[in-house]
Amino acid sequence: MQRDTWQIIKDHLAGDIASGKLAPGARLPTEPELCEVFGVGRHSVRRAVPALAVEGKLRVEQGRGTFVEAARLINYQIGRRTRFRENLIGQGYKPYGEHLSSTIVPAPDRVAEALRIARGAEVHRIMRRGLADDMPINLGIAFHPVALFPDLGARREAGVSVTEIYRDHGVTDYFRKSTTIFTRRAEPEESRLLRQHPDHPVMIVTKIDVDAKGTALGYSEAVWAGDRVQFSFDSLDDPFVGEEGKTP
Amino acid sequence: MQRDTWQIIKDHLAGDIASGKLAPGARLPTEPELCEVFGVGRHSVRRAVPALAVEGKLRVEQGRGTFVEAARLINYQIGRRTRFRENLIGQGYKPYGEHLSSTIVPAPDRVAEALRIARGAEVHRIMRRGLADDMPINLGIAFHPVALFPDLGARREAGVSVTEIYRDHGVTDYFRKSTTIFTRRAEPEESRLLRQHPDHPVMIVTKIDVDAKGTALGYSEAVWAGDRVQFSFDSLDDPFVGEEGKTP
Repeated sequence: MQRDTWQIIKDHLAGDIASGKLAPGARLPTEPELCEVFGVGRHSVRRAVPALAVEGKLRVEQGRGTFVEAARLINYQIGRRTRFRENLIGQGYKPYGEHLSSTIVPAPDRVAEALRIARGAEVHRIMRRGLADDMPINLGIAFHPVALFPDLGARREAGVSVTEIYRDHGVTDYFRKSTTIFTRRAEPEESRLLRQHPDHPVMIVTKIDVDAKGTALGYSEAVWAGDRVQFSFDSLDDPFVGEEGKTP
Repeated sequence: MQRDTWQIIKDHLAGDIASGKLAPGARLPTEPELCEVFGVGRHSVRRAVPALAVEGKLRVEQGRGTFVEAARLINYQIGRRTRFRENLIGQGYKPYGEHLSSTIVPAPDRVAEALRIARGAEVHRIMRRGLADDMPINLGIAFHPVALFPDLGARREAGVSVTEIYRDHGVTDYFRKSTTIFTRRAEPEESRLLRQHPDHPVMIVTKIDVDAKGTALGYSEAVWAGDRVQFSFDSLDDPFVGEEGKTP
């Protein structure tokens, strides 16, 4: 079946959005530029763009231009009680954590500092990949003091949650003390594991979890898929305050 | 004066770090790869890399590789009482806000929703560039209801701070209600205005400020220089709680 020119252009743009060649939030080329790129008249472009806007893939802003809709980003809420599983379930996604490796290493300086333990003290080093609805969203390295949780590595590998391991060692509740976020270009291996377009940036997020007395339980550094996730923080009404820490 | 091969390689790598071709946090190519790229022996590479590590430009992590040091990022703390000026001064930087434009527009849907005003109600649309020690760190668009602050546009243009304008309209204190962060590639115009390497990503940060009763005073969307800034959040001990809102 013959397709109209505007439909071909629409499919082409939709493909670029899906593949990430057109990134969320990016400005679409102007109408004359699109005509030039596709070698077609304005008429076709003027049908393709509104059709994509109706589907929620593009957003037309009067006087500013047309942008790739960023609404499909997962909104990952960060607060005192952030838990990977509950967070994603709350957003309507099926969470999954894939174990990549676990070893025991002497704590590097920055890890020792974050966990407030002696430099070189033994820590578990757990590498995992986090997924939402089978799409990878992060690659994380978590460090936990061996002195506090001797069996953590093997149990994480067996699929036991951090919350459960903490609890079995008498930690009935824990909190996110601090979070830092920055961005950079992705390394090829990261793009591959996150199934992202190689040109897309990643966000690097570090966090420290503590118990009710302030003892550091874990420190982690994760590489998050920049084209799939946004972070949100509510400074006044922490959505996790008052909610009981549950282990699924 | 003749320079040794290792010094030439060191200068080359230092230049790539300074220009951003090697981004903060990126992994340096392996020793064999560097030998290949520069067409030199291991001896030269083995002198150049530690020399850059001593200068704090590279960080060697045993068993993981060598990374471009990210320590020069400005640590922008976000909490209930985040103020651009105080925040940067607290980090040892000289803050400056450059007025780009101010207009009155009907509130776009997302702005009306954030400010909880009627769609199309008049809002000030203020564009500014924020600098720290004369380096651009963000490009922001802020929206404020005209009904609350009729003279805001002209006064912002004249260099009056938001805090002062709020106060002159009876708002003695205000708080950051919520923040969202995501990343994407920079548009060419953004890279130019932020004086960033065109390949470096940016972070898009939105925030809503409210008064003590929860009335929304301002909503803003800013593009932050990804190679210059990291954000940090302290979920337990908000560094800004209890500090009085000061206007410099």
